[in-house]
Parts: sequence; structure tokens; C-alpha cells
Amino acid sequence: MKAKAYAAQSPSSQLAPFAFERREARPDDVVIDILYCGVCHSDLHTARGEWPGILYPCVPGHEIVGRVAAVGSQVSDLAIGALVGVGCMVDSCRHCAACNTNLEQYCESGFVGTYNGPAFGGGENTYGGYSTAIVVDRHFVLKIKHDESQLAAVAPLLCAGITTWSPLRHWKVGPGQKVGVVGIGGLGHMGIKLAHALGAHVVAFTTSESKREAALKLGADEVVVSKDAAAMAAHAASFDFILNTVAAPHDLDAFMVLLKLDGTMTLVGVPENSHPSPAVFNLIFKRRSLAGSLIGGIAETQEMLDFCAEHNIVSDIEMIAMQDIETAYARMLKSDVKYRFVIDMETLKAEATA
Amino acid sequence: MKAKAYAAQSPSSQLAPFAFERREARPDDVVIDILYCGVCHSDLHTARGEWPGILYPCVPGHEIVGRVAAVGSQVSDLAIGALVGVGCMVDSCRHCAACNTNLEQYCESGFVGTYNGPAFGGGENTYGGYSTAIVVDRHFVLKIKHDESQLAAVAPLLCAGITTWSPLRHWKVGPGQKVGVVGIGGLGHMGIKLAHALGAHVVAFTTSESKREAALKLGADEVVVSKDAAAMAAHAASFDFILNTVAAPHDLDAFMVLLKLDGTMTLVGVPENSHPSPAVFNLIFKRRSLAGSLIGGIAETQEMLDFCAEHNIVSDIEMIAMQDIETAYARMLKSDVKYRFVIDMETLKAEATA
Repeated sequence: MKAKAYAAQSPSSQLAPFAFERREARPDDVVIDILYCGVCHSDLHTARGEWPGILYPCVPGHEIVGRVAAVGSQVSDLAIGALVGVGCMVDSCRHCAACNTNLEQYCESGFVGTYNGPAFGGGENTYGGYSTAIVVDRHFVLKIKHDESQLAAVAPLLCAGITTWSPLRHWKVGPGQKVGVVGIGGLGHMGIKLAHALGAHVVAFTTSESKREAALKLGADEVVVSKDAAAMAAHAASFDFILNTVAAPHDLDAFMVLLKLDGTMTLVGVPENSHPSPAVFNLIFKRRSLAGSLIGGIAETQEMLDFCAEHNIVSDIEMIAMQDIETAYARMLKSDVKYRFVIDMETLKAEATA
Repeated sequence: MKAKAYAAQSPSSQLAPFAFERREARPDDVVIDILYCGVCHSDLHTARGEWPGILYPCVPGHEIVGRVAAVGSQVSDLAIGALVGVGCMVDSCRHCAACNTNLEQYCESGFVGTYNGPAFGGGENTYGGYSTAIVVDRHFVLKIKHDESQLAAVAPLLCAGITTWSPLRHWKVGPGQKVGVVGIGGLGHMGIKLAHALGAHVVAFTTSESKREAALKLGADEVVVSKDAAAMAAHAASFDFILNTVAAPHDLDAFMVLLKLDGTMTLVGVPENSHPSPAVFNLIFKRRSLAGSLIGGIAETQEMLDFCAEHNIVSDIEMIAMQDIETAYARMLKSDVKYRFVIDMETLKAEATA
């Protein structure tokens, strides 16, 4: 079936219209009419070839929401017209220890990414959500229970949402706990909302005093400007868990010392250059852990979407037209977005075919 | 009461005879006639003033075994003549969250070290086990159930033993698990013995092919020379837990990539200069953790001693006279010891008083 998209043809070319074929629906497939797609930093890194193993043409986009347009013969639980989502993965081996425990993101053979799939799973290139439609195996399709009017703002939950939800759940964040969220961007703003909704006392860390009010509105109980040494010291050895969403290299020890006995700081961003090496002393003297976490499994993503629907949580977004993606990228590089761009795919569908 | 010891009078002076007074026994105190004392790397670092906050004169030694010589009026469960041990701590606040959960080593006020106590807990300097006797609060005195003939080899359990036991237990090492031990020195050789006795499949990592046979004898199921890239690669993503006992700066990623999903590597050595910064990618892509651990609590130390008595586990030691301590230090700096020096305190008691 024919689809339209925006694609980068090389690391140095801007995203531009691209026509291609999606596969015909297999028995387990769901054909999705894409309505909105969130814009993740990974899209930009991939389109620009900043990571190894990028295949071109590259159609980014892994925060996909839309409507079921057709289903294969084996799909019995999704009706045509249902609202659905697709996140960062469209396949995995389905039989390794990780897949068997609903942790497809850690598939031992590597999951197949929604775009640039071969980077992990081998096989043909995959094209992501900056397109009019996508065909995805039922296992990797999420049901959306939010009100349809919220749909665009649901899109970022599929990556930014689950990337913060999964570590919050894995490290058992909940009532009675003091939880830090470092960085108030696409990931961090979701981390604040979710940790707050999970019942934790949430402290947001930012380098900028100007973000204080916004962080409080997102659900932070306290905001600390991380450059303020006295404010940081006041929180020494008091956190159960810190979710660190900052991908730029920074001093991890400034946050490690804020963890109490047996506390963990989990990183969800990969810096281009290493963070300064964390001090072993800080790990040893309170049995602290420094960990990492990668998106989340499919069952967990559904759990997060259901939780967000129940608690009326969505992302804070700014809607853009497909044609404005390069402008959006430029603004993302300046952190000039609150907090996620989402592409209205009507703007692509309405575009005259070249 | 009068005691004899060997002390350093300054960072640059060699250890030499030193006479001083131990406190009179308080109601909760145990007076111990020291029979043997293990020689830990920390002794050397402290005596030489290589760590901040060292007070002089400095009497090192925190792997102490001996016999109860007297008890205070409140001590009802230790008879005169009983074999007992003292490890790295002689006091703590007894009422913080850590102390209340038997984790005195993480006391929020800082525990009082067996020597150079003020470095952590404030107050008067404390003098350690390179001496004829010591007076210690009952709470910090361990019962020894080993046969008396094994007593010298029990001494290193009080630091090297508990420092490896505590993380093995905290991270729930047991049958069916694959566990790595990095470094085969004073700590590592105990880590191998204990992990083996706990039922894990133990892989010892060493930089030296020459240590292979010795590691197998200690209880390792496999030995990997960490410079052998192919041998390392064969173990990729397969370990549940790695206990890293190496204090010298080294490439942590070489071991992090050997952890499987949700695996943890725990550091028990503090390097003088930082390790190269571990790659965030390796943490994120299998939700791995890098952690630290500090000695162990008193209840846990008793548990370890009882376990070792039951499983006939002691340290491999080389006995020395008190007068040979500087020679022993020089050999430790060349890693020329298998695996722990232990001072026979008879050699101090027999010394003519200056």
C-alpha cells in the first residue's frame, strides 16, 4: 500500500517528501491511519546520522497515534476506527528471556525499531511515524483510552512517557518516597507528572531559575536550581530515587550525594561524550546505585497509557505542520519547546503529491 | 589499663612500639586480650596519611581476634575466655534509620572506626588491633565459633570477609546464579570462597594467567584473564552479579558488558584516582547497575562468621611478627601476599618494654 512521508535522504539533507510502499497486512498486522506523531530528540539524531548504523532514506517518528484502518485475519481485539498507538518498537524475537518477561526493549536479539529498525534487529529498514500510515504487528500496537480530543498530546507518551514510567515503576516509586527528576524537557516533564501521579514527593532539578513556575505546575512539590550549592546541600542523602533525563555530560556526583542509603539514580539519556566519572566513594558510603533504563516493554506501555487515561495525564505539546519539521528541529536544539512538538499528520495528507 | 601497640607517629614515620592506656571497662564493655590481627590495605593507607583526617599516633588494625579477658556488669552473654572478634567499627549512634536496621556501617552520624575513629564519628582518636588488648562495647564484639586452631585465619573475616559477604548477600547471590569476582587479593580471595559456598557459579577475573590455579583452588568454577578479549567476549551479558574488589583505576565497562539484564556490579574498593567514566550506553541497554558497598553490619558480620564456621571457611594467611609490619607493608604494595598477613600478637607481648 502506498504511503507518504517526510524522509532524510542523507545525513546532510533536510527532511523532504518521500513516497514509498508499506507492506500488505499480514494476518497479525494492524494498518494504522496516522493522525499525530511526536518529535523525539532521537528523530533528530537519527536523521542527521549522529548515531552509527543509520540507513537512508530515514523516516523518523516513534510517538505515533492514529486510528485502525484495517486488521489482519488473526487480529480479533481491535476494531476498525479504534484509537491506537505505536512507540519505539515494531518487533522483537518474542522468545528470549527478555521477551518472555514482557521486556521486549531488552530483546536479546535486539528489538526492531519503529524506524531505522536494522540498527537493532537486522533485516530491512523500517520507516517511522512521519508518514500517513503504518503497518504494525498487533503485539506492538497499544490501545488508547484517552478522549479523542487529547490524542495529539497522547503521542509523546509512547516514548517520553514510557521512558520515564518504566524506571519509576521498576524502582517502585510511590507514596512516602522522595523522588528527584533531573532536567525539565520532553522526558523530564513527563517524569514529573508521572512520579507525582504515582504519589511520590517530587523534586525537580533544573539549571534555570526561569523553569521554577513551570515545574511546579507540572506537579513538582519542590524545585531546586542545581547551580545553587546551598539548595542542593539541603537535600543531601534524602532521596529514594532520582530519574536523570539529561543527556548532556554533567556532574553526576552532584546528584548521587542526594541519594539516601540504598538509593538509585537512573539515567535515561545517552550523552554524546562521557559524563565525568562518578566518585566511587559516593557509591560505597551509602550503598548507592547508578543505573540505566531503556524505554519500556509493551505490557508496561499499555499499563502507562491506561494509568494516564485514568489520571488524565498527557504531554504538554506544541502542534506543528509536517512541513515545519526542520524549524522544529532547530528549536529543539535550543531547547525552545514546551515540552514536545507533535506533527499534525493532516498537514502531510493534504500536501500535493510531487 | 595499660596496653602496648605499634603506632605511626606521623605519615612519614615507620610503625614503632607505643605504650598507651585503654579505657576502664564500662558496664557494656568487653576487654579483649588480642591474639591475632589481620593486616588490611586500609591500615597502610591510614598509617601513611594517604587519606584525609588521619590523627597521630595511629595504631592500625581492624581484623582483631582474641579472648575475653573481662566484661562489664551489663555483659551477660560472653564468658571470660570466649573467643571473640572485632572488625572495622567500635561504635555508632545506635538510633538512626541505618543503625535501627542493623546497618551500623552506614550510620547517619558516621560509625566510630576501630582506629582513627574520629575520621567518621568525631570524638577521641581510637587505637586499633596492632596492640595487646582492646576494650569494646558488647554490641560491636563478634562471637567466634571456629575451632581455636583456626583463629589466626579467622581474623581477616572481620574486614575482608564481611566486605565481600555483605554485597553477596544484599544482592542475593545463591544457587543458579553466575557471579564474577574481579581481583584475587585479600578481598577477592574471600569473595571467591564465599560466593562458592553460597552456591553460585563463580568466575574469577584476574590480570595474571599465573593466578589461574590458585583461583580454582579457592573455589572458582572458571578463571578469566581479563586481558584476553576473546575470553571476556565469551562471557558477554551472562552475569547476574559481579563483585569488583580492585581499587586501582581500571576500565569498568570491560566488566559492565558481562552483566546480563538487570545485573549489578558492586565496587568495594575506592581508587585513589577515578576509574575511566563508565559508558551510559552499557547501563541503559540492559538496565544494569553500578553500585558500591561498605563492609557490613554487626548482625551480618555475626551471620558471616557463623556461616564460615559451619562451612569451614577461613582466610588464606601468612603469619608475621609485629616487628615485621613494615616489611609486610612493602610486600603488600607489590601484591606479594597470599592473601592476607596476620600478626601474631604474642610477638608484641614478648617484646621488652622500652
